[in-house]
Amino acid sequence: MSEPVSELAFKARELDAGDELAGVRSRFVLDDVVYLDGNSLGALPAGVPERVDDVVRRQWGELRIRSWEESGWWTAPERIGDRIAPLVGAAAGQVVVGDSTSVNVLKALVGAVRLARLDGSVRDEIVADATTFPTDGYIAESAARLTGCTLRPVAPERVPQVLGGRTAAVLLNHVDYRSGRLHDLPALTDAVHAVGAVVVWDLCHSAGALPVGLDEHGVDLAVGCTYKYLNGGPGSPAYLYVRREIQDRFDSPLPGWNSHAEPFGMRPDYEPAAGALRGRVGTPDILSMLALEAALDVWDGVSIEAVRAKSLALTDFFVQCVAARVPQGRLELVTPVAHRERGSQIALRCEDAGEVMKRLIERGVVGDFRHPDVLRFGFTPLYVGFGDVERAARVLGEVLAEPRRT
Amino acid sequence: MSEPVSELAFKARELDAGDELAGVRSRFVLDDVVYLDGNSLGALPAGVPERVDDVVRRQWGELRIRSWEESGWWTAPERIGDRIAPLVGAAAGQVVVGDSTSVNVLKALVGAVRLARLDGSVRDEIVADATTFPTDGYIAESAARLTGCTLRPVAPERVPQVLGGRTAAVLLNHVDYRSGRLHDLPALTDAVHAVGAVVVWDLCHSAGALPVGLDEHGVDLAVGCTYKYLNGGPGSPAYLYVRREIQDRFDSPLPGWNSHAEPFGMRPDYEPAAGALRGRVGTPDILSMLALEAALDVWDGVSIEAVRAKSLALTDFFVQCVAARVPQGRLELVTPVAHRERGSQIALRCEDAGEVMKRLIERGVVGDFRHPDVLRFGFTPLYVGFGDVERAARVLGEVLAEPRRT
Repeated sequence: MSEPVSELAFKARELDAGDELAGVRSRFVLDDVVYLDGNSLGALPAGVPERVDDVVRRQWGELRIRSWEESGWWTAPERIGDRIAPLVGAAAGQVVVGDSTSVNVLKALVGAVRLARLDGSVRDEIVADATTFPTDGYIAESAARLTGCTLRPVAPERVPQVLGGRTAAVLLNHVDYRSGRLHDLPALTDAVHAVGAVVVWDLCHSAGALPVGLDEHGVDLAVGCTYKYLNGGPGSPAYLYVRREIQDRFDSPLPGWNSHAEPFGMRPDYEPAAGALRGRVGTPDILSMLALEAALDVWDGVSIEAVRAKSLALTDFFVQCVAARVPQGRLELVTPVAHRERGSQIALRCEDAGEVMKRLIERGVVGDFRHPDVLRFGFTPLYVGFGDVERAARVLGEVLAEPRRT
Repeated sequence: MSEPVSELAFKARELDAGDELAGVRSRFVLDDVVYLDGNSLGALPAGVPERVDDVVRRQWGELRIRSWEESGWWTAPERIGDRIAPLVGAAAGQVVVGDSTSVNVLKALVGAVRLARLDGSVRDEIVADATTFPTDGYIAESAARLTGCTLRPVAPERVPQVLGGRTAAVLLNHVDYRSGRLHDLPALTDAVHAVGAVVVWDLCHSAGALPVGLDEHGVDLAVGCTYKYLNGGPGSPAYLYVRREIQDRFDSPLPGWNSHAEPFGMRPDYEPAAGALRGRVGTPDILSMLALEAALDVWDGVSIEAVRAKSLALTDFFVQCVAARVPQGRLELVTPVAHRERGSQIALRCEDAGEVMKRLIERGVVGDFRHPDVLRFGFTPLYVGFGDVERAARVLGEVLAEPRRT
């Protein structure tokens, strides 16, 4: 076993030496654990603790209420939205940060159905990815109920076949949370538009890991979380993208005072603000939001194209190392091999995945287990190196060579 | 002018000496400003900065994903809900923390309409306080639209007259945000129940300032923010109360994965959890939420009855000092004089309120201005003393005695 080990370790060193993003790792707080769970909770960016401390002690503790203006609290949702925008291929003024992904899915889907019906057409179907992260499906069901639609869950590859004149809105995931499969955003967006429906993309598992191209591909609405590849911290606020051309018609089911044209006019009648901030609702959670803002500093000078190139190299290398280290027949690769179909994670089916993941974590390799039989490894190119990948695969091979605990 | 000044200052000293809550002030970070804006953003509790730093550096930075279990992140919404519960007169297991007040108003109101219709009755009206903080009205309008109801805005005192067989749900404020008027929660709740409708109370301006008695008075649903008298920090998460008896029928328009009976089962079908956590939606914003948890430590050993007694004494004394210091005819008291109709703030109508508040703030007395002509002063009994009150009224008298800037 010594020969292939040293060869792969040598290759890892070569790849790390040629990695233009290697230096970005120092912008994070990391230890000797191989952290392959950044697709669940991103690591802590080094600048966050100090910034949060300033927000708490000075902005809240000393300036108190004055900070809504003086510390830029009030405008944080759209300001931070504009920081996320280039990472998802959006021009400024189309993204606002706030609320959870689930809440944003409701805004987007109800808004999408209303948009689709503006021409007077009787559209009564919401199509949603049947393999989606469950919350999207539950909220889609709720959006359907609230708008008099029927929810039609279908596998993403079958979506084009079920679209038609009854389709109001379509909710899709850019990358499947379990398999790591990357869906064809441009083609699916075109297919939805071809029948006059409105598309909502969930970017939770793609934003910060690969180019999305929202503007370029004419996406209508998109949502995403910020605590995975954007490293915003546990439960950091999600975001909502509303394409500029449809903003003045976007009709939110959550018309809170923060999206009013004149929020401090305290008017009894609701008049929606112009632009992206029509997606805001209530008072933003400033601590979480400004932690996210500080976290986004790690992107300075980093291109999403470079991130994507490294992500593919990392996952390719992981697949190669696993093949070399793991006894045959013990694992099944769930994530597609083709680059155009792969996100930034590798999912491996393994009968005793729960137990295997426990042992990996005990030995300093952190991925996660997805019920019932999936080992999921996320690769954040900003702080994961090829040496990490080689080590992870090596430890995985060791664990799988051991007798199974019963 | 010297005689009355010294008399009131002397009385303030006496009142401060007899104040059983005087020691609680040291649990906050305060300076020499008289901070009468705690009804907008509560002051910083002294224990918060260290706790937040631990959450960021250790829980997120070192434990990372493990903290969802090991640091109790996952159960924070219901755990912190149970900390708030006694402050609003609720037994454990009925309050969850999360999302903004606006989002919780939507959950509560749509849920209320669905509850009211469970017996098959055709109820199609939502009654809402016409003088409410605007966001409640906007969301009520949205809830009406989403459930096929009509929104009927009426002054709170007229609510009993408009209730009837068509009433599905009623949204009321316990304390009016502008006038500081305290509404009769027990009587109005009874009136709503008498017609078979469901009541939703907004406690933003009462929770932490006076006893609410949710359980005692049979309230169905309630929402509130935590950044006013609960001092949770800017935009800290709101909460939702669902009375135990109706929890198994509470049907939320935001059925996110966090309210699923088996959230990690990743099941495509939604099965709501039992109990209060049915009000949860998506991943909770941990930083803001755990800051709130730390902030609630200031309540250790403090009874809400003692807070109420001091609040009334503070506002009584403020009214007395203002009457002694301010030229007659310059101000009009908006807040009711009767204790049973008064929250924990004093609102004064003043033609040039915007300019007056600016000058007050320049001189270290912070209240706020509510469009178009209201000076609003909030009294947080945990950290405001009678000396503060005397000083605030004295400075107000000085400002109002000056020539008006034009």
